[in-house]
Amino acid sequence: MTYDARYAAYKDMVEAALENYLDACCAPEPLLGAMRYSLLAGGKRLRPIMLLAACEMDGGSVDRAVPFACALEMIHTYSLIHDDLPAMDDDDMRRGRPTNHKVFGEGMAILAGDGLLSLAFEVALDAVHTPGEIQAMGYIARAAGTQGMVGGQCVDITCEKERMGGADELLYIHLHKTADMFIGAMGAGLALAGAAQERIDAGMAYGRGLGLAFQICDDLLDIEGDAAVLGKQTGMDATHGKLTWPGLFGPQDARHALAEQTEAALSALLPFGAAGNFLREMATRLLGRDR
Amino acid sequence: MTYDARYAAYKDMVEAALENYLDACCAPEPLLGAMRYSLLAGGKRLRPIMLLAACEMDGGSVDRAVPFACALEMIHTYSLIHDDLPAMDDDDMRRGRPTNHKVFGEGMAILAGDGLLSLAFEVALDAVHTPGEIQAMGYIARAAGTQGMVGGQCVDITCEKERMGGADELLYIHLHKTADMFIGAMGAGLALAGAAQERIDAGMAYGRGLGLAFQICDDLLDIEGDAAVLGKQTGMDATHGKLTWPGLFGPQDARHALAEQTEAALSALLPFGAAGNFLREMATRLLGRDR
Repeated sequence: MTYDARYAAYKDMVEAALENYLDACCAPEPLLGAMRYSLLAGGKRLRPIMLLAACEMDGGSVDRAVPFACALEMIHTYSLIHDDLPAMDDDDMRRGRPTNHKVFGEGMAILAGDGLLSLAFEVALDAVHTPGEIQAMGYIARAAGTQGMVGGQCVDITCEKERMGGADELLYIHLHKTADMFIGAMGAGLALAGAAQERIDAGMAYGRGLGLAFQICDDLLDIEGDAAVLGKQTGMDATHGKLTWPGLFGPQDARHALAEQTEAALSALLPFGAAGNFLREMATRLLGRDR
Repeated sequence: MTYDARYAAYKDMVEAALENYLDACCAPEPLLGAMRYSLLAGGKRLRPIMLLAACEMDGGSVDRAVPFACALEMIHTYSLIHDDLPAMDDDDMRRGRPTNHKVFGEGMAILAGDGLLSLAFEVALDAVHTPGEIQAMGYIARAAGTQGMVGGQCVDITCEKERMGGADELLYIHLHKTADMFIGAMGAGLALAGAAQERIDAGMAYGRGLGLAFQICDDLLDIEGDAAVLGKQTGMDATHGKLTWPGLFGPQDARHALAEQTEAALSALLPFGAAGNFLREMATRLLGRDR
């Protein structure tokens, strides 16, 4: 199967399952509508697809991994909804559409985020029976929480508000706000496959490199990208005084770091041989993305 | 041991463990401070204590139940932080102190809530090894999520905003916003003890009655209570146009319903005999509380 066909197949699995989970979650309106609006708004589905690919790379069952992949996407979506709020990044557009709070109001957007985070754990928990599944859920929980994404967002908005921060803060933000969810995807996928710990660690090193590259690419797109292709305003990082790689070190250095982290991600896949080809291609394609 | 001594012993266990979990959670500042501010602000610790008592009532180990009790209290605290936000109930005072967003700002308060909800799942997940523990965590997750507390809060703020709703909406809100967390506490505690399903169901019926009684009592205190004793302004439900039992049916009927639900809670404990005395006393005391 070509990379594109396999990507599309994974994506279809994830999106069909996300629909089913929403249909079954018993949320009252307008909460359900608000959750649906953001969860089914398209997007690359990168994190859940990475989880499925990591699981398959070590011989695991993709079907059994789908609930965990969906949990990861729900957590990612909740974080976007909360990040876009006026009290955080105050963004009006996301994926070419008004942000959640613009449509449903701030109160319902906060609840939609809370609901998606809760649903993520419910969905994954329903699929937990074995030690490998408990371990997988642990990787996801750590990636999402105070030592992961939430911690990264804290440092991000603090640096922004106080117009402070240097290389240490930048790395903390990129690592925890962005890369941890990729690291969690790889850890969870490989744990579900029952991989040995050193292979899980290798996969997580790939997630780290790819996650950092992904965020540096995002920062570059904000200064050099096309707003129409991106589906959101560009130049917002500078307007908000956000700490970014090109902002701190210049776009030349940022492109260097992007290539370097992609290289680190690719090296980490060596132990997986040809089974790692899909994730290899994913890293290479993200390097040249325009949205 | 007297009821008060046992309550105090449970409370000390929960509060010591909450401190330890915060110390170990690796959240950056000011996130950690914001989480600590609300989580260690006192409060009755009713839900975690109910979980521990339910576990012990069926012969379970309290020590092994503490992580789940703490998870429940973290979820309860996150819900208070988010509920107090300007986009939700817009409250300035809670337990005699300024609310979280008044001290740390709205963005950090949203993150403190997100962090506590995430930490709840991390902490419980670290303690999950057996099917009973998986089942316990499932009860907690369902109580917190879209068919539980988050769903209840959605209907609550929707009815408030649109000044609508009758008996159906009121019951939905009381049941899901408030009672579900008590139901989850009982279900989790008994599942941890390895109780038979019919005993778990009986315990959850107690949680339902007590939760409804607790909320009706809250509604009554808002119109008849002493603000100084409560640590928050009274009369706010009417000001906000909130759907409440006394508001819809009058205080006389509310007192009736309060007694009726307490009675239902007490009846549900019959299968537990003398082992249910602590939870019996808890229901009786809550009936006459002034804060």
